[in-house]
Formats: sequence, structure tokens, C-alpha cells
Amino acid sequence: MATTLEEAQISYEELSDLEQEFDDVETEIIRQQYALSKPLYTRRAELLAKIPNFWPLVLEQAPMDIDEYIQPSDSAILLSSLKNLSVSRFELDADEKNGDPRSIAIRFEFAENEHFEDTVLEKKFWWRQSKDGFAGLVSEPVEIKWKPGKDLTEGLLSLAKAVYDEQVAKPKVENKDKKAKVVLTDKQKALKEKIDQTGMGGVSFFAWFGYIGEYISAEESKQAIEEEREERRKRKAGEPVPKDEDEEMEDDDDDEELEDDLDIFPTGDAVAMAIADDLWPGALKYFIQAQEQDGMSELDFETDEEDEDDDDEEEAGASRPQKKQKGSKN
Amino acid sequence: MATTLEEAQISYEELSDLEQEFDDVETEIIRQQYALSKPLYTRRAELLAKIPNFWPLVLEQAPMDIDEYIQPSDSAILLSSLKNLSVSRFELDADEKNGDPRSIAIRFEFAENEHFEDTVLEKKFWWRQSKDGFAGLVSEPVEIKWKPGKDLTEGLLSLAKAVYDEQVAKPKVENKDKKAKVVLTDKQKALKEKIDQTGMGGVSFFAWFGYIGEYISAEESKQAIEEEREERRKRKAGEPVPKDEDEEMEDDDDDEELEDDLDIFPTGDAVAMAIADDLWPGALKYFIQAQEQDGMSELDFETDEEDEDDDDEEEAGASRPQKKQKGSKN
Repeated sequence: MATTLEEAQISYEELSDLEQEFDDVETEIIRQQYALSKPLYTRRAELLAKIPNFWPLVLEQAPMDIDEYIQPSDSAILLSSLKNLSVSRFELDADEKNGDPRSIAIRFEFAENEHFEDTVLEKKFWWRQSKDGFAGLVSEPVEIKWKPGKDLTEGLLSLAKAVYDEQVAKPKVENKDKKAKVVLTDKQKALKEKIDQTGMGGVSFFAWFGYIGEYISAEESKQAIEEEREERRKRKAGEPVPKDEDEEMEDDDDDEELEDDLDIFPTGDAVAMAIADDLWPGALKYFIQAQEQDGMSELDFETDEEDEDDDDEEEAGASRPQKKQKGSKN
Repeated sequence: MATTLEEAQISYEELSDLEQEFDDVETEIIRQQYALSKPLYTRRAELLAKIPNFWPLVLEQAPMDIDEYIQPSDSAILLSSLKNLSVSRFELDADEKNGDPRSIAIRFEFAENEHFEDTVLEKKFWWRQSKDGFAGLVSEPVEIKWKPGKDLTEGLLSLAKAVYDEQVAKPKVENKDKKAKVVLTDKQKALKEKIDQTGMGGVSFFAWFGYIGEYISAEESKQAIEEEREERRKRKAGEPVPKDEDEEMEDDDDDEELEDDLDIFPTGDAVAMAIADDLWPGALKYFIQAQEQDGMSELDFETDEEDEDDDDEEEAGASRPQKKQKGSKN
């Protein structure tokens, strides 16, 4: 089986290049979908603004890949103070034809609260590609003006920001010594220690504002994308393509591991995508779900008789694939 | 909470109408995506045709919502005889501007085998809407020419087809007596009995070819869609809209329940959507996953040392959200 591709005389690259073309179509589709649905999201926002506690109620229905990160103490703030949540594709807002549709900004608006001064916390995620094959969302830590004694991240977030600022201020080292061991700065050591000390209960959801991902500049990304496109063009045309250097990739793996160790919320990109691709478009559906659950507690009392009949049917026909939903609109 | 909408003075209909507009955008996006990706699927088919056992290997990786329906005996045929699988949006193929993008055709191509004569089994699903609010995929049973003693559905599929043909041959009763009890025909009784007798082990996957869903003609659907669109237009313009009759909907619920009881594979539409929206677009990814799993059994032996180091790290930083995948392309 492992030689199936070899037998077929198809290279992994042929398949991979075609996959990339499918991804490119996906990306263009996001661009078109954003343009078509933008006016609908504007109208939706006007309606939702009239519904008290809309976003807190939606967040309570959030799927596991968001909900698992919300601690009880986070929940308390969100339920009492979250006024609005919005997602925008800011590169498209700036340049609808050429901006990368995958970059997103997630904006939380809060009423005055006990925990922090900010009324708006917005985190941006840029879609970046690197020469060693990474492609995904990168970000930078967002500062939160915690009130005294109220920092739910217990200093992690501000330390993450300090380390980030220190890193981007460093001059970029070209052709660095690949054999040199990675040496942590004092701030990085402090951050690593603090991360290691974090209790089993898990960090606050607000640590998500500290997610970084990778350090990839817009220029490096643009270059990597163009090179990759050029290599694909050559392969398609049957022209020779220079190979990647294996050593360079090994070294970058160490860097990636370090960046991951120092990230106070390594899965921040997955949470961002869950918010942008699931919670945000599905907000009305989640809200209606919350309403129905509330309404159900009154209906339960009346449907006990119906349940008896259903049991008989289930015993007899138990082996047929059972329908859960009819796709009805009601 | 149950009165949240009332407090906000927003009607359920306002939200529901807006949701429908979002769905309309989704549908248009499917149309655009089909046009853009069609040439890529053609090229992909040319590549895949060179890879032996491509689709059987992909089906082995199928997600649970397909895999749970494949019995060992089904697996045997698929692994030995399935030559190709393809999905098309046939209404778009016929009329790219006006066809419903959600209607799909799923085509299985087989080599000569022990179980049936057919080399092609294709099932079509039409997106239909009904006046009582149903919207979804409906289909009709596909006949399989089973070889003697080899019918994996044990007669269920042919009986389903006989009942379907009988139903569509009946004259449509307008303004039927809503109080009249539903009377089953002899064929329907035989089908119901056979379904009830089906063992706990579950039906063959090939019973999926017998999925019907609902009996909704193209004309009824077209009318229902136009009426719904007109009602939305009126509500938006502030014009009065006539209400649905409650009695009519109650009666239709009984019909729906009966249709469900007599469907030999009630979740057929969900399986169709899983094939069209997940397996079909993701086939290369699933294939590569299968290849990697095969390759992994050799690599496992070499990575034992690395595993030891990982354990130490995990103890210390166990409470940080752990990254599963970096989004890297490698």
C-alpha cells in the first residue's frame, strides 16, 4: 500500500499541487461569500442589537472547540458584560480584490466591568505562509488593562506581550549559525517558567488574546507565496525545480517547538477559526437553540404520553438507520 | 429568557426570514464554487484513475457518518470491486444559472462482481421544498440486479421500489378528507413488516439506494419556493401575509411519519450530504491519510526515543491548551 503512488507513477507533488489549486478556489469563494453576505451581516447586527444578552446566550451554546476554554470566572464576565461580538475579514475590507480573505479580526465589546478598563478588545489574525511550508493564522498579543487584583491570566498575558515586543525588536539574523543552541532571553525564561507553573485547572479564556503562532512578516509571507506559486507553475510546465535544503527545515522545527512552548495559548488559531467559521455565521441558529431549550422545559411536561408510543416503535424497527432531523424548517 | 424576543419586539419571522437570506447566499456560493472547481475535479479524476484502489482506500477512511452504515459484507464488495465514485450537481450541469445547486447525483462504478450485474449504480437527490415547511433532499429507489442468492438487502430494496412505483402511479388526491385514517396497501404492509423484522445487526449499506425521503414533485416544490419568497417579500415590505392552516400541518405530520416508517434508509439524505460535502471534496486528503497510516507503521519503530522527551514536557505544561496540528502544509 505504501508504494501505491509509486506504482501509479504519480508524484506526491502532483497531488499536492492539485490540492493547492482546490485551496485557491476555496479562498476565492471566501472572497465572494464575504462580499455577498456583508449587507446581511449589517442587517443582522441591527436586529441583534435589540435583543438583550444575545451574545452571552450564544456563547453559552458555543460548540466544544470554543466552550472547553471558557472557565467559570470567564463565563461570569462574558455573561454580565459582553455587549457585542463581531468578525470581519479586514484585508478584504481594505482591498476586496487582493486582500487575503483568510485574515480575520475578532472584536469583543464590553460594558463597564469589575475586571478591566477596556470596552473593546479586538484581536487580528493574519494568514501567513513561511518558506519551510507553514501556512496558517498568526497574531500578536493584545493588551488588557486589568483592574488591580483582577488579572484572570495572572500576569501571563502581559508577559507574553513583553516577550513578543522584545522579539520583534531584535534585528533579523540572516544565515544564522544552524548549529548554535537556542538561548532564551531573561523575559523568555520568565515566561517559560510561568507557563510551566500554570495549574491543572487551565488558563483563563482571556489568555487567548496572547496567542502568537509564528513570527512571520508580511514580506516573508508574500515572498513564500510567490515562490510556491512559481514552483507549481514550473512543475506543471515540466520545468526543473530546485529542492528544499533538509538542514534548514530541521532547524526551523526547533524554532517552531520553542515558539509553541512560549505561546500562552497555542491553539489560539483553532479557536479563532471556530469563532469565525462556526459561531459567527451560526449565531442566530445557536440563539434559537438557546430559546428552544428554555421553551422546552415547559413543553416536557406535556409530551410524556407521546414518549410511550415512541418506545414501541423503536423496539420493532431498531435496526433501521434512525432519523434525527427531517431537515424541516419548523 | 423565553420572552427575550418579545421584549426585543423582534418577531421570530424577522429572524427566520434573515436566516433564509443567508441560506440563499450559501446556495449561490455553491453555484459559483461548482463552476470554479469543475475543471479541477476533471483533472483530479484523470490522476486518480491511475491509482489502483483509490476509492476503496478512501472509503476505509470515511468519517463515522458514512462508515457506521458500511457492514463487513458491504466492505468486501467495495474493496474488491469499486472502481470509481463521483458526485455531480446535475441541475447545474443542465442549467448552470437556474438549476438548484443543492441537487446531487452520486455515482458508484463497479467491476464485474459476484453480487450484482450492474457496473454503474447512480442515485439522484433533488432539493425540494413543500408547503408545510419541509426543505431537503428527496430521491427514488434505484434497482440493483442482484445475482441469485446474493441480495445483501434481502429483498428490502426491490420491495421499496415496488412501493414507490405504486405510490407515484396513484392519482394525486386534492383536498383529501383530513379525518380519514391512513390505509396501507398490501405492498406497503409487506414492506412495513419486512422493515420491522430487520435484525439488530443493521441493514446493508446498499439499502441506501432505496432512500426516498418525501414525495414532493418538481411542480409542488417550485410553487412552495415561490410562495415562500413572496411571503418574505411581503413581510419585508410591511404588507399583510395570510397564515398557514394548523389542521393541514397536523395531517402532514402523520404523512411524514408514515413515509419515514416505510423508508428502508431514513437517513439516506444525511449520508448523501456526507459523501458530497466531505468525502468527495476531501478524497485526496483521506487518501493521503491512508498512505500516512501505512507509512507510520514503519516510522513508529524509529520514534520511540522522541516520545520519552515529550512526556517530561507534558507534565510541566499540561494545563496550557495543547496544540494538535500546526496548520503546516507538510
